[in-house]
Amino acid sequence: MSAPGNGPVLALVGATGAVGGVMIDIINGRESVPWGEIRLIASPRSAGKKLTVRGAELTVLALAPEVFDGVDVAMFDVPDAVSAEWAPIAAARGAIAVDNSGAFRMDPEVPLVVPEVNADAIAVRPKGIIANPNCTTLSMMAALGALHREFGLRELVVASYQAASGAGQEGIDRLHAEIEAVAGKQLGARAGDVREALEAAGLSVEDTPFTAPLAMNVVPWAGSLRDGGWSSEELKVRNESRKILGIPDLKVSATCVRVPVVTTHSLAVHAVFGSEVTVERAHEIFAAQPSIVLVDDPAKGSFPTPSDVVGGDPTYVGRVRQALDFPTALDFFVCGDNLRKGAALNTYEIAEELAVRG
Amino acid sequence: MSAPGNGPVLALVGATGAVGGVMIDIINGRESVPWGEIRLIASPRSAGKKLTVRGAELTVLALAPEVFDGVDVAMFDVPDAVSAEWAPIAAARGAIAVDNSGAFRMDPEVPLVVPEVNADAIAVRPKGIIANPNCTTLSMMAALGALHREFGLRELVVASYQAASGAGQEGIDRLHAEIEAVAGKQLGARAGDVREALEAAGLSVEDTPFTAPLAMNVVPWAGSLRDGGWSSEELKVRNESRKILGIPDLKVSATCVRVPVVTTHSLAVHAVFGSEVTVERAHEIFAAQPSIVLVDDPAKGSFPTPSDVVGGDPTYVGRVRQALDFPTALDFFVCGDNLRKGAALNTYEIAEELAVRG
Repeated sequence: MSAPGNGPVLALVGATGAVGGVMIDIINGRESVPWGEIRLIASPRSAGKKLTVRGAELTVLALAPEVFDGVDVAMFDVPDAVSAEWAPIAAARGAIAVDNSGAFRMDPEVPLVVPEVNADAIAVRPKGIIANPNCTTLSMMAALGALHREFGLRELVVASYQAASGAGQEGIDRLHAEIEAVAGKQLGARAGDVREALEAAGLSVEDTPFTAPLAMNVVPWAGSLRDGGWSSEELKVRNESRKILGIPDLKVSATCVRVPVVTTHSLAVHAVFGSEVTVERAHEIFAAQPSIVLVDDPAKGSFPTPSDVVGGDPTYVGRVRQALDFPTALDFFVCGDNLRKGAALNTYEIAEELAVRG
Repeated sequence: MSAPGNGPVLALVGATGAVGGVMIDIINGRESVPWGEIRLIASPRSAGKKLTVRGAELTVLALAPEVFDGVDVAMFDVPDAVSAEWAPIAAARGAIAVDNSGAFRMDPEVPLVVPEVNADAIAVRPKGIIANPNCTTLSMMAALGALHREFGLRELVVASYQAASGAGQEGIDRLHAEIEAVAGKQLGARAGDVREALEAAGLSVEDTPFTAPLAMNVVPWAGSLRDGGWSSEELKVRNESRKILGIPDLKVSATCVRVPVVTTHSLAVHAVFGSEVTVERAHEIFAAQPSIVLVDDPAKGSFPTPSDVVGGDPTYVGRVRQALDFPTALDFFVCGDNLRKGAALNTYEIAEELAVRG
């Protein structure tokens, strides 16, 4: 598939990064792909590396304007600043850029797309750029989109249980190192004992991607500080949910909390709708959605947990309850792999949707 | 203090258990106590043990009707069934029973008390029994009580981050063993890899207090199954909050989730009030409350986390935000040691309040 053939040309920018690696796994795992050619692109530092994609060894190309010539769809899995500079260049060379960074998500001229929720939005892209949502927002979009179509979503109160890999490979390595530092010690009973154990193991508690110890702890912070004490992550959940679902006045309160889980974000969702909802009907809606796996039989210990669903593509939904004191509200718990559906998979699904639509 | 002297007689039933041990620490840590005598009581199996309380070595007495003779206040830190049988016996012998189990909390003839919220409720106790709330509910009561007095609480949406010690010493030991089993391995990337590591370390994943792996995971379940898919823990949060705050029609939705933290429960709280609220006024209210420590300067990385507050008596509150789309709502994050304020401390504070009131 990597040799020029019939079909559009796909480029992957950021092919050697953490999400880029998951992207290649996803492309390799597809039964078939619509692409006539696949180009791998990375910073000049990583150019020349060889990676195997669907059986063919591909040489990573250095990021430059010319590499986008002839490209139909260019997926960007790179930091915000790189996307901000290079996605418009790719678009100017004729590619449709599908960007997984935060650079364009709230740009009114850039659609923000989750294919099973608002696939049609990809058709209107005046800048030639389509954005992929933040991983925390994405984790609940398939479930909320399906419920919204039937009941009309009005309000959302969300608390997150976010994985370390949301902070990249650095976050994954840090959590593993912290768990090693606290293991075998009877910690967690006295204020500061975890912090001391990390320092004793040579882990700086100042210079960490999580601001505070994450092992044997939870950290109510993700992103950077915005007005009113809100974190950037919490505002993304609000603003991106509104844009994807097409509900500009959706009421949203989110509290984003990091937990000592390597990969897979979870969310406790309280969703208020315009009409009455039942657990039975919600179960039917979830069961009918191909990208959702319903795991909801607490009598048998059946509910989604991150360590049981990591590595998979679907959104896992469970603990569905009709809110006792809010007749039009549902409470539920959702888990989604933040590196797959939360990042690479959704970006790739947008790219395939573009290929299908021609 | 343990020899008969001037002052009322205090009994501690369950003196040799996990919460009982914390209770003795609390009694030993008080600057002064009002008691003329303290009696330690446990099951016949633990009777005869010697424990030091405020410098005096006390022999644990076997639970029997006669040990309550002459007792003014009897604190119960025992399982529900033991409380259900023995608190009425203590009351019949003339003691006021302060019970930390779930046996009497929703009994309309038993007050459910958090001293800084509803101390006056202890005066009306037709059964001679006063109940101490569930630890998850307790973690947010000081904060919500203070806000309710000024703004009038109407609705509550809560997601919990509950510690392993909520499941007792067995829960603490299990989490330590699980962390040891996963440490030093690159786990958390593939579904089931944590489960396999636990089994390889000889830890049954069927026979666990948490239903699912807790290390490198979060588990959206605590308690037992009730109607409509709700857990008993979630219904306690709803029903006990209503009773303590004296708001019978308070609207509550709670999702209770266990996290790999040894001790200290955290809660993400979305609270809707009857009148407009500001972060500034909420900060003033929290700062004026002796039992609350306000930790809320995210620009400096300042917010409460369990591992930084465990072992302390206060409730720690941070991440206070005016909800952007709900003009009368606040979002905040609260941490409280579930073995201290969440259990032993509040029970002891009720006992001292009784001693003060005579």
